[in-house]
Amino acid sequence: MAPEEFRAAGHQLIDWISDYRKTLDQLPVRAQVQPGEVARGLSTSPPEKPEPLSLVMSDLERIVVPGITQVQHPMHYGWFPSNASLASVLGDIASSGLGTLGISWESCPALTEVEEVVCDWLRQLTGLSDQWEGTIHDTASTACLTALILAREKASDYAEMKSGLQGVPNPLIIYTTEHAHSSINKAALLAGYGKENIRLIDVDSTTYGMSPDALRQAIEEDRKAGRTPTAIIASVGSTGVTAIDPVQPLGLIAREYDIWLHVDAAMAGSAMLLEECRFMWEGVELSDSVSWNPHKWMGTILDCSLFYVKNPQHLIRVMSTNPSYLRSGVDGDVTQYRDWGIPLGRRFRALKLWFHLRLDGVESIRQRLRRDLENAGWLAEQVAKTKNWKVVAPVTLQTVCIRHEPDGLNGEELDKHTLNWVNRINQSGEAFMSPSILDGLWMVRVSVGVESTQREHLEKLWGLIQSTVSEFE
Amino acid sequence: MAPEEFRAAGHQLIDWISDYRKTLDQLPVRAQVQPGEVARGLSTSPPEKPEPLSLVMSDLERIVVPGITQVQHPMHYGWFPSNASLASVLGDIASSGLGTLGISWESCPALTEVEEVVCDWLRQLTGLSDQWEGTIHDTASTACLTALILAREKASDYAEMKSGLQGVPNPLIIYTTEHAHSSINKAALLAGYGKENIRLIDVDSTTYGMSPDALRQAIEEDRKAGRTPTAIIASVGSTGVTAIDPVQPLGLIAREYDIWLHVDAAMAGSAMLLEECRFMWEGVELSDSVSWNPHKWMGTILDCSLFYVKNPQHLIRVMSTNPSYLRSGVDGDVTQYRDWGIPLGRRFRALKLWFHLRLDGVESIRQRLRRDLENAGWLAEQVAKTKNWKVVAPVTLQTVCIRHEPDGLNGEELDKHTLNWVNRINQSGEAFMSPSILDGLWMVRVSVGVESTQREHLEKLWGLIQSTVSEFE
Repeated sequence: MAPEEFRAAGHQLIDWISDYRKTLDQLPVRAQVQPGEVARGLSTSPPEKPEPLSLVMSDLERIVVPGITQVQHPMHYGWFPSNASLASVLGDIASSGLGTLGISWESCPALTEVEEVVCDWLRQLTGLSDQWEGTIHDTASTACLTALILAREKASDYAEMKSGLQGVPNPLIIYTTEHAHSSINKAALLAGYGKENIRLIDVDSTTYGMSPDALRQAIEEDRKAGRTPTAIIASVGSTGVTAIDPVQPLGLIAREYDIWLHVDAAMAGSAMLLEECRFMWEGVELSDSVSWNPHKWMGTILDCSLFYVKNPQHLIRVMSTNPSYLRSGVDGDVTQYRDWGIPLGRRFRALKLWFHLRLDGVESIRQRLRRDLENAGWLAEQVAKTKNWKVVAPVTLQTVCIRHEPDGLNGEELDKHTLNWVNRINQSGEAFMSPSILDGLWMVRVSVGVESTQREHLEKLWGLIQSTVSEFE
Repeated sequence: MAPEEFRAAGHQLIDWISDYRKTLDQLPVRAQVQPGEVARGLSTSPPEKPEPLSLVMSDLERIVVPGITQVQHPMHYGWFPSNASLASVLGDIASSGLGTLGISWESCPALTEVEEVVCDWLRQLTGLSDQWEGTIHDTASTACLTALILAREKASDYAEMKSGLQGVPNPLIIYTTEHAHSSINKAALLAGYGKENIRLIDVDSTTYGMSPDALRQAIEEDRKAGRTPTAIIASVGSTGVTAIDPVQPLGLIAREYDIWLHVDAAMAGSAMLLEECRFMWEGVELSDSVSWNPHKWMGTILDCSLFYVKNPQHLIRVMSTNPSYLRSGVDGDVTQYRDWGIPLGRRFRALKLWFHLRLDGVESIRQRLRRDLENAGWLAEQVAKTKNWKVVAPVTLQTVCIRHEPDGLNGEELDKHTLNWVNRINQSGEAFMSPSILDGLWMVRVSVGVESTQREHLEKLWGLIQSTVSEFE
């Protein structure tokens, strides 16, 4: 496609996207399609000849859009916010348009250096000291896998350069809790640790944060048995109930026993833009690596996960490659991000952060985050003061975990009731929330924080929830 | 940013991109900036207040563009082609504009099902049997890491669910060659195998393809010593010299000894769109996993790497997570791509393949690939017939490896001469090629295949090379 053809098509697409974003609140929140329905709308074989843009656009409208669960919808309260702020979308478009290749500094110096600068901007904005250096990963899953590989190689004195994990006699042990994100468990397995070497440490029964005492006891036991405590993963804002592991005491333990501490603040990282929230990761400076996702609440379009380390030399030693066709005269003077993560090639992801922060400004982002905290607080208040309703976990951020507990209902019957009302709402397309299991019982997570969600939408949701529940009484 | 503001900004950006793409052949191929120059142009602290689009755009023009090595430039012959076809850019823009979230089928059924369909389109287009199922990864590095983890878990009978790699007594061994991409070595180390367990098998001295006899011998030796042959990585189109490992004999050995065979066709995969090239991976049906990058020669904008497996059940068993907040009623009936790779969340990458193939049509892509093969052949011919010039490796695809060998020059002196002339051209910004080491000596890779590169550009390059070399004589 020639640039002039692209120009015409691009304008059409921009108009389409603007209209789409303007009116998506009229679409059902949850996609109403059945499994296979989208696929059945598409050709089973690839097109030999070029098709007109109009046809592709009408298929986009007719087949793709109905297959989208609208996470930008103001009535979306599922999972975690996945805001795709339009300012960041512009940066993403610029990145696509430029068509750069990030495989070395030389292949695109600007890609490397804008990434260095925006990672440092976010470091400052979240109150991290200047001892940290960052990079952009696709997701926190990948960042966490990287952290656990770094921990493995530190504890094993770089076994990767010798006979690998098989040559390490003492089992390497990971400490986390059952509330940690599923990607922690997955990363540990992928990094080769083995399920038996993952310790799920007890949590505080009220806050669901990791118990430092239980952690210390587990470490001591493992050491006595000849095992090597290798990594602690502290979750700041867990997925289920936004629980916060106490980073400071865990960090002191990590330093005392020389164990890698990774802080997974995928969700709560955005809140660190607010000074009043930073107590939540107090002690973060004691950790070895930190990751969080601007592509969640802060709203820089997916995929954009930040990964900070204190010792880039260790990172590079574990992750580096230096084939002859990638060497250049400036190798010692520049950052080679290929040695900071798994993929060799990278997109110019930094542009979406650069556009987002510059076009929106940090002040307005902070205002929006504070609005959401207030809205979540309001909802929690309504729930708490209503008969037979319960807020089942502390509201640390913007996620409110609720349950309707009619008199006399418990166990499986209560679970059935919970899933009944939440599924009815989700299926209706009017709003979407994620049911989740807490202490063996289903509850419903109301995760506030979509960019377009205002107080009126919360009011509407609370009305909808109450009227739906009443249909089951 | 509101949709109407986005509309105005988006139109401006589309015009800017169109102009940029139209005139980028007037820019130097290699970025002319010094280390730190781009960073110094940017603010060291983040913006509190919104900045106007005009300022961001002028910084893009003034600071970012000079820091880009122009891989879309017709005189770019470095590394491998990294085409960002404008039809695929439109798909990427659509993806950004939609702002979807791919963490489960339910979070965006269309994202999952379009991915299934386009992966199947590419399967058909490359002549793979319908026994293969595919997914999109960011890069071949990640696909290869996934393959080596799958191999590890198969050979160890799912050690990840027990005590991990440390609990596996017999060393697990990987077989590849020194010509394999650097990411293979890296993936083996990250997956925990250890450097000592990577065997670099001898290659044929003419084709640089892996020797099946040497492979068999290495396997036999490892087995005798109580080690477990675990994975063979066959490169189809190696990075240095586009060497092709003989997949068929390697595949027969893999099946005989029950060893995982991964075919890394990152570069050559695009050529499989041409029936006349498919002999290059003859035997691919004997393998367990295949990856290749539409984001290279085929031209679907980075990041877009395909990963096919024959046994998705094994893949899912190794990679799956099933937390309560991601469960839904359709789990058994749909594909959950989070269980097909490392990251939980994914962009709607399938749209760029969908737009690319539909708007350009496969026929025109094939024509372009054939044009490049002819152009590379033409250059190789010129080099071969010119005094003191040598094509130093077989031209299997579109990369021509050349060296100027003046009478009496060899060893370090010859290396110096090679690096002198190629660096002078690269520094000039008139063209860009990648020097690389082959059999201990530097040579120059001329990798043909940028979308805009025509025969006239090759003629210009060959003239430039000869005149530059003459300056050193």
